[in-house]
Amino acid sequence: MRQKAVFFHAGCPVCVAAEQQVAEAIDRARFEVEVVHLGEASARIAEARAAGVISVPALVLHEQVFHINFGAALSDLG
Amino acid sequence: MRQKAVFFHAGCPVCVAAEQQVAEAIDRARFEVEVVHLGEASARIAEARAAGVISVPALVLHEQVFHINFGAALSDLG
Repeated sequence: MRQKAVFFHAGCPVCVAAEQQVAEAIDRARFEVEVVHLGEASARIAEARAAGVISVPALVLHEQVFHINFGAALSDLG
Repeated sequence: MRQKAVFFHAGCPVCVAAEQQVAEAIDRARFEVEVVHLGEASARIAEARAAGVISVPALVLHEQVFHINFGAALSDLG
């Protein structure tokens, strides 16, 4: 069974680069990658916060958060 | 042909988590992932700096640097 990976972003240029390169590089045979745009899906900001996301872009793998560069603070999104 | 990805780290706990999870999740069918421990291979610090690495752990993909969380500043390594 594939593991779940969630990539949270906010559509900023730093986020787009990370999505197109880091998230894209993940092995789809082993991981189901969900991409969540918090600017459009603001209802999921609470989920991101609960997962430990402080800024975007961020990748949540195995319930651990990996902040990738810095696009925007979660607190600025809502 | 597989593309090259380089994961620079310094053996710190933040680095190890990122290596075991983010670097490990990369699709080996498409990417050749080289892991460089800058604490042991200090000769490669200049290469990391030239690639734009400011802190480790960092992943260099398609000549772009993605800093993952924060383990140590490159300037503290040498």
